[in-house]
Amino acid sequence: LLELGLVSGVGGVSRGGRRPSVFSFNPHSGVILAAGLGATHSRLAVTDLAGVTLVDREFDLDIELGPEAVLSLSQKQFTELLDQAGVAPASVRGVGVGVPAPVESATGKPVQPPIMPGWDSYPIRDRLAGYDVPVLVDNDVNLMALGEQRTCYQNVPNLLFVKVATGIGGGIIVEGRVYRGADGSAGDVGHVHIAAAGDALCRCGKVGCLEAIASGGAIARRLSEQGIEASTARDVVELVNAGNMRAIELVRESGRLIGEVLGSAVNILNPRVVVIGGDLAQAEGHLMPGIRELVYQRSISLATGHVRIAPSHLDNRAEVIGAALMAIDHVFSPAKVDEAVTEYAV
Amino acid sequence: LLELGLVSGVGGVSRGGRRPSVFSFNPHSGVILAAGLGATHSRLAVTDLAGVTLVDREFDLDIELGPEAVLSLSQKQFTELLDQAGVAPASVRGVGVGVPAPVESATGKPVQPPIMPGWDSYPIRDRLAGYDVPVLVDNDVNLMALGEQRTCYQNVPNLLFVKVATGIGGGIIVEGRVYRGADGSAGDVGHVHIAAAGDALCRCGKVGCLEAIASGGAIARRLSEQGIEASTARDVVELVNAGNMRAIELVRESGRLIGEVLGSAVNILNPRVVVIGGDLAQAEGHLMPGIRELVYQRSISLATGHVRIAPSHLDNRAEVIGAALMAIDHVFSPAKVDEAVTEYAV
Repeated sequence: LLELGLVSGVGGVSRGGRRPSVFSFNPHSGVILAAGLGATHSRLAVTDLAGVTLVDREFDLDIELGPEAVLSLSQKQFTELLDQAGVAPASVRGVGVGVPAPVESATGKPVQPPIMPGWDSYPIRDRLAGYDVPVLVDNDVNLMALGEQRTCYQNVPNLLFVKVATGIGGGIIVEGRVYRGADGSAGDVGHVHIAAAGDALCRCGKVGCLEAIASGGAIARRLSEQGIEASTARDVVELVNAGNMRAIELVRESGRLIGEVLGSAVNILNPRVVVIGGDLAQAEGHLMPGIRELVYQRSISLATGHVRIAPSHLDNRAEVIGAALMAIDHVFSPAKVDEAVTEYAV
Repeated sequence: LLELGLVSGVGGVSRGGRRPSVFSFNPHSGVILAAGLGATHSRLAVTDLAGVTLVDREFDLDIELGPEAVLSLSQKQFTELLDQAGVAPASVRGVGVGVPAPVESATGKPVQPPIMPGWDSYPIRDRLAGYDVPVLVDNDVNLMALGEQRTCYQNVPNLLFVKVATGIGGGIIVEGRVYRGADGSAGDVGHVHIAAAGDALCRCGKVGCLEAIASGGAIARRLSEQGIEASTARDVVELVNAGNMRAIELVRESGRLIGEVLGSAVNILNPRVVVIGGDLAQAEGHLMPGIRELVYQRSISLATGHVRIAPSHLDNRAEVIGAALMAIDHVFSPAKVDEAVTEYAV
């Protein structure tokens, strides 16, 4: 770490034997590039080594353009951001990337991503290896959970983050770390079966998933069927903000349906905090009541006695902050991160 | 550990400096007392320090007799078991106890146990402090999960154990340790709401819980209503073994209902193995097909691609073995166990 300039020796008092040293962490001795790639828009940031954002930007980007186009554009944006921050590319210490897909943690590759055609098993790390620093990749909601927990709930070891956007996903923090499960798919509340979904076909190929009836995409589809133009979660939020009663009604119903599934999740995981984020959470005044109602009605009293259900504080910055923190964790303590990424050890 | 005789020095080759030592673990240098207290029957064991059972016994014991009577009888039984094993009470190094209730991990006290009248907040540790060794207490299913994972799935870090008996409960292992959640109630699959349960009242006070319709107790109640005598999960298994078609039909239906909830649990936890134990698992030929059918139908492909659904190998010995292992973990590495139990550090 000394060699990398990440820490600097500031002396120490000798009491005989090997000279003791006190090191001071220097968050300005390098930067992290962080990306949150979404289905329709992405956010990129340059942060310092404490995870504090130096510069960031959000822009429309269709992930269906495929990995080559999306990652080329991201690299170009990173170059511009570094320039904007007045930081040399040589100062980059790590890269963290979030994608809206399950990710194989051993390789950082997307696994059968339903909304990312062309990305299946794509080697994102290799493509971004140009900075010659560790590149870490994880699922977007895992990173939102990490960003939110580290930033806003440092004393809360168990947290469930639920992203309600065009799709629905969840990320779990156990004892301060992302819990990925055996195949990296832990926290998948969006594809829990719910009777109310009937035989609605989900983009995952199953029928009756929560996402197929309660996501922003599902609401937009139902509105469209009634002649109200909408295709994304953001469109739904705009309609809600404009006072469209049908959109408001559907968001409130979604809240109750999501609450039904989160009631099960709270029983199973017993988290201290459930954070609701994602685009549809912008309509929190209409989304949260149903979630709270059903979780408190459906979960056992021991689990609900202290559980707090809160909207995301970091909002649409949660993912990119989590991506930066994932990379920082690895740069400072590669051994703590999954063995699988030790090939990138500094 | 040397002072306690738990390890013995067996020499070592000096290469200068402080004399190196090689220690040999002596599993026979002490014993563990382990208890699995059930609603209607209990199992007690004396194990060595590797968790290998030296002697054990199971007997009918109604937990509703209350803590004084149950723990007095258990102590008497422990004395007899030590005598039977030819081990002096002074050789006891730790005590592990499982109870069919949520347990506050900081104190080892049962918390609002629905089926243990008189046990709420009872100081089990103090009552069993007579051996002057650490006393550890945990929920029965957590210990079953621990016992099964350590004994049969040592290379499987993520495991969900589901006990289907008179009630239904679950225990979660994450990275080789019991995951308790924020309040110790993690893994509670029995009180997940299920539409098929309608407005059936559960003993937890809610309506529509899985346990209220699919547990051994629920099946026994439904059989009784049809004039078939049964009150426990064991009675149901006896009827199944005797070829009672109505009992078989209800157990098969239970399998599907349990599978419905476990489908959600597999999505949320993404475990590598789901182990089905408890008395009703004795009828596994009729219980497992429905569980497997629904889990594979309801969970996302990434989570179900490698998940294995297996009956318990340890069967009715899982809890007491888990209780012994919990105590052994603490005796050999008190720091690793929750801070809360360090007051009992050896």
